Amino acid sequence: MTVNRLIYLPLGGAGEIGMNAYVYGYGPAGKERLILVDLGVTFPDMDTSPGVDLILPDVSWLEARVDRLEAIFITHAHEDHIGAIGRLWPKLQKKIYCRRFTAIIGRLKFDEAGLPVDQIVTVEPRPATIEAGPFKVQFVPVSHSIPESSALVIDTPAGRIFHTADFKIDHNPVVGEGWDDARINEIVAERPVKAMMCDSTNVFSNHEGRSESTLGPALTELIKGAGGMVVATTFGSNVARLKTLAEAARAADRSICVLGRAMKKMIAAADEAGVLSGFPRTITPEEALEVPRKNLMLLATGSQGERRAASAQLSRGKYLGIQMKEGDTFLFSSKTIPGNEREVLRVWNAYSEMGVNVIDDAGGKYHVSGHANRPDLEHVHRLVLPDMLIPMHGEHRHLREHARIATEAGIAAVVATNGMMIDLTGDVPEVAEYIETGRVYLDGTALVGAMDGVIRDRIRMALNGHALVTVILDENDQPMGEPWVELSGLAANGRGDRPLVETIETDLGEFIDRAGKKLLKDDTKLEDEIRKVLRQVAMEEIGKKPEVTVVISRLIAD
Amino acid sequence: MTVNRLIYLPLGGAGEIGMNAYVYGYGPAGKERLILVDLGVTFPDMDTSPGVDLILPDVSWLEARVDRLEAIFITHAHEDHIGAIGRLWPKLQKKIYCRRFTAIIGRLKFDEAGLPVDQIVTVEPRPATIEAGPFKVQFVPVSHSIPESSALVIDTPAGRIFHTADFKIDHNPVVGEGWDDARINEIVAERPVKAMMCDSTNVFSNHEGRSESTLGPALTELIKGAGGMVVATTFGSNVARLKTLAEAARAADRSICVLGRAMKKMIAAADEAGVLSGFPRTITPEEALEVPRKNLMLLATGSQGERRAASAQLSRGKYLGIQMKEGDTFLFSSKTIPGNEREVLRVWNAYSEMGVNVIDDAGGKYHVSGHANRPDLEHVHRLVLPDMLIPMHGEHRHLREHARIATEAGIAAVVATNGMMIDLTGDVPEVAEYIETGRVYLDGTALVGAMDGVIRDRIRMALNGHALVTVILDENDQPMGEPWVELSGLAANGRGDRPLVETIETDLGEFIDRAGKKLLKDDTKLEDEIRKVLRQVAMEEIGKKPEVTVVISRLIAD
Repeated sequence: MTVNRLIYLPLGGAGEIGMNAYVYGYGPAGKERLILVDLGVTFPDMDTSPGVDLILPDVSWLEARVDRLEAIFITHAHEDHIGAIGRLWPKLQKKIYCRRFTAIIGRLKFDEAGLPVDQIVTVEPRPATIEAGPFKVQFVPVSHSIPESSALVIDTPAGRIFHTADFKIDHNPVVGEGWDDARINEIVAERPVKAMMCDSTNVFSNHEGRSESTLGPALTELIKGAGGMVVATTFGSNVARLKTLAEAARAADRSICVLGRAMKKMIAAADEAGVLSGFPRTITPEEALEVPRKNLMLLATGSQGERRAASAQLSRGKYLGIQMKEGDTFLFSSKTIPGNEREVLRVWNAYSEMGVNVIDDAGGKYHVSGHANRPDLEHVHRLVLPDMLIPMHGEHRHLREHARIATEAGIAAVVATNGMMIDLTGDVPEVAEYIETGRVYLDGTALVGAMDGVIRDRIRMALNGHALVTVILDENDQPMGEPWVELSGLAANGRGDRPLVETIETDLGEFIDRAGKKLLKDDTKLEDEIRKVLRQVAMEEIGKKPEVTVVISRLIAD
Repeated sequence: MTVNRLIYLPLGGAGEIGMNAYVYGYGPAGKERLILVDLGVTFPDMDTSPGVDLILPDVSWLEARVDRLEAIFITHAHEDHIGAIGRLWPKLQKKIYCRRFTAIIGRLKFDEAGLPVDQIVTVEPRPATIEAGPFKVQFVPVSHSIPESSALVIDTPAGRIFHTADFKIDHNPVVGEGWDDARINEIVAERPVKAMMCDSTNVFSNHEGRSESTLGPALTELIKGAGGMVVATTFGSNVARLKTLAEAARAADRSICVLGRAMKKMIAAADEAGVLSGFPRTITPEEALEVPRKNLMLLATGSQGERRAASAQLSRGKYLGIQMKEGDTFLFSSKTIPGNEREVLRVWNAYSEMGVNVIDDAGGKYHVSGHANRPDLEHVHRLVLPDMLIPMHGEHRHLREHARIATEAGIAAVVATNGMMIDLTGDVPEVAEYIETGRVYLDGTALVGAMDGVIRDRIRMALNGHALVTVILDENDQPMGEPWVELSGLAANGRGDRPLVETIETDLGEFIDRAGKKLLKDDTKLEDEIRKVLRQVAMEEIGKKPEVTVVISRLIAD
C-alpha cells in the first residue's frame, strides 16, 4: 500500500515579510504532486543588497521537480505575491490561476517579459473550482488593501486546507467584496478545515482593525480645510484608498490628477476589472496647471519615500511642470514600512523646507492597515476552527507570536520558516525535511545568488574602500618601473597630510625591491604579500584596511 | 559709535537630530566675541555614509575665528552634545565648562585622545557664573535622560538668553534634580529672557510627557513575572533607567550583571559624580554564570540593534560565556530611533528563533522619552515668555512645527538651520548671514569632508560594482597582449551564461586592435574610450554600468 502524505513548504514569505511562495504537495513521499501559491518579490536595501533591483525567492527546489508541479495560484496582485512571475515563470512553465484584477496585472507583467499571456487564467470565485492533480482549489473573496484579494480553499484527499493569504476583517472595504463570516461558516460546514495557513503581519497589533470606510469623513474634513494644493500619497495598488481620497477631493470641490505610472496602471486595471465604479473623473498634469491650487488635489506615488516616485520628485522641485508651494498640504495616507523611515523623513523634511504642511498618519486618522490585527486573527481562528494552524506572511517574531496564540487557544501550531517542509497528514503538523532555500537577486538584468559573494564584495568596497595595484615584471621576474596604485573611496591623505597613494606606492616599491627571486616568480604569493603590505600601510596611515585588487603583468619574450 | 550685535549661529543640530554645535556672539559685526555651546557627533548609516565611523560638524568657520572664541560649554554628556570634543578640541583649544558628571565623561575622552584634561573645568549650577568675554553663563539643572543635564542662562549686554539644551518636564526623574517651575520663574523674574533656544525633538508628540518614576511598578511586575533569565537594554547613559531596572530586578530577587563597556562607564561616572546613590550591587559575568536563571537579570548595551553591542552579540550566541535560552525574556526599555528599525528587528528576530520572549515598548509601559512633548514645550514657552524663540535640536520639520506653535502663541520665531546666522539684537530674530557649514567624516583615523567625493565613490561602487582594466602598451604604442579585466561586485556571467570577464576582455581587445595610432598615444582619451566600451558591454550583458578604473602602462625603452 502506498502511503500518501500532504505537505506544506514555504519557499518565501515565512520568516520575512515579502517574496511569498508557498508549495503544497500530495502523494507518496518524494513523489507528491505539487501546486505553488504566490510568487512574489521583496525589495533590496543599501545595508544588505546595495545596487540590487529586486529580490526573488530561490525556486530551484521546485524547478528540479517541475514535472510534478500542477499549477500556480496567485492570491492577489501585490508585488510580494505576484512580482516574480515575469522572471521565474520561465523556470516553471505551468498555468497561473487568479482572479480578474490580478490576471490583468499579471498579464501586463507577462507582456513586458515577452511571455505567453494565455498562461494566466482568470478564475471566478468559489464555488468555481480548479482541479490541479489531487488538489481542488477555490478562490474565496477576502478584504485586503487591493481589489479581489482571495483566500484559497485547497481540498486534498487528506483534508481541506484554508490558505488565508493577506486579509483583514472589513465589512465595508469601499472597493470589492467585504469580509463575510457567513462565507467562512459555509466553507467550514461543508468540510472541516484540517490546516489553516494564516497571515501574521499584524499579530502584534492589539486593537481591532478598522474599516477602510471609516476614513472618508476625516479625509474630507482635512482636504476641505486645506488652503492651497493638496497632494496625497498611498500605495498605488490601494484602489479603495484612491477612491476614498478622490471622493474626499470632489466633496472639497477639487479636481483630481494622478501622478505616477504605478498608480495609473492600478486604476486602469481596477476599471478594466469592473471593480472601480464611480471613480471621479481625473485630469492630466497639463490640465492641472490651469486649475487654481485650492481646487486641485494630486494623488501621487511614493508613500515609502522612493527616490524616483512622484512624491519624492515633487519634494525636490518640479514634476511634470507642477511645483509645491508654501501653504500647500502633503498627506501620507499610508504607513511607513519599517526600514523606510529615513527615506520618508527625507521627503517630509524637503517639503518642510518648501513651507508645505505635511500630515502623516501618526494619529491613525488617515490610514488603516490591510492586515488582520490580533483580535481579528483570533476571531478567524474561532470561525475556521482548524485542526492545525501554520502562521505565514511574517518575520520569525510574528510567526512565533501567532503560533503561541493558536496553541493557547488549543490549536496545534508550528513555526515553519522558509525551507521547512511540514507534513500535515497526521493530527499535528510535523517537520518532514529541511530544504535549501534562499534569495536570488535581480541585479540589472542578471540573476545573482544571494550567497554568491557578488553583493558581499560590493558591501566590502562600500565599507572599506578599494585599492588597486598593478605591477609589471619582465622576462626575468624583475619589476619594470614602480608599482602603480589607484584608490577609490579612500581618504586622499594619510598622516602628516602626505598623499596616501604616494606613501603606498613608495612602500610597495621598496617591498618589491627587497623581494626575493622566489616570491617574484610566484603570482599568488606575490599578490598576497602585496595585499598584506598595502593593507598594513593603509591601516597605519588612515586607520582602515581597504579591499585590494592586485594585477601582476608579466612580459613574455616573443 | 560702535554698534554691537548679538548673534546665534548653529553649526550643527539645527535641521537634523545630532552633532549639536551652537555659536553665540556679541560685539561689532564681524568682530563678535564668541562662545560655543556643545560639540557633538552624529552617526553614519549605510545609505549615505558607508564605512564611516563618526560624523562631526564642520567647525572651520569657528577655527578661522578662534582668536575670538572665549570658551566652550557642554550642556550634558550625550554623544550628540559632547562626542566631538576629542577630535575637534585641538582646532579650538579653549576651556570647556560643564557640570561634574559631564566633565568626568569629557575627561575620559580627552584622556583617550591624549589631550590635557585640565582644560575641562567642572562648574557648579547657578548661581555659579562663568564669565567669558561679554558673556556670563550659568548652568541650570533640567531633567533629561542622563545625569546633570543643564540648560544655560547666557547673559549678554544685549539681553538674557535661555538655551534649554535637551530637557523634559519630570518632577521625579529618579536620578538627579527634578524639573522645577520655580527655578525658571526665578530666572525670568531676575531678568526677562530675550531669546530662548529650545529643544524641538518631541514637538510632534501631542500628549504630556511621563515621569521616569512611573516606570518602576510596570517593570517590577514584568520582571517578577518572567520565568527564566531577563535581559534588558536601554541607552547606557540613561542612568536613571538603569537604576529603575536594577531596583525592579532586586524586588524580583534577581542579581544584576551589567554587560557592555559603555554602560559600565556611565554607571562608574554617575557613581563618581555622586548622583547614583543606592544603585544595587552588581555581579560579574563569571559570577552570573553561577546564578540560577530565574534569579538573574542582565543590563545590556545595544538598544538600537548595534551589531557589536552586548544585546546583538547575545542574539547571535554566547557573550562572555552567557547564552540566552528558550523561555528567557529580553526587554527593549527604549525607543527605536528612526532609521535603526532594521537592526533592532534583526536582534528581535534572532531572539525569537532562540525561543526568547521579546518585549518592546509598543505599549509605552517600559520606556519614557527624555524630551519635552508639545504640551510641555508650550508650558515652558509660557513660563519663560521670551521675546523670541529659536527652535533647535530637530530636523527641519521639527523646527518648523515648533516655530509655528511659538508664533501662534505670539512669540517671534524663526526657523534657523545650520549655517544661518541670526541677529538677535532687535525685537525680532533676523537672518544676518549664511555661513558655509557641513559634515566631516571620521573614517578610520582620517577626517574626510562629506563633499570630498570619497564616500560618494564608495556608494557608487556599492550600487554599480567595479571593473578594472589594465592595458600595457610598448614603446610604439602597440598593445602588448590582451587587456586584463578584473570585476568586483558584478555578476559572473552575462547573456547566454558566458563569463562576463571574458566577454569584456574580448570586446576590449577588439576595440584596441581597431584603435588608431592617435588614440593609442593619448592616455586620457584611451581611458575614456575603454571606460565607455566596457560600460556599454556590461550594460548589454548584465544591464548595469559599473564604475571603471583603467590603468594604462607604457613601457619606455631604457
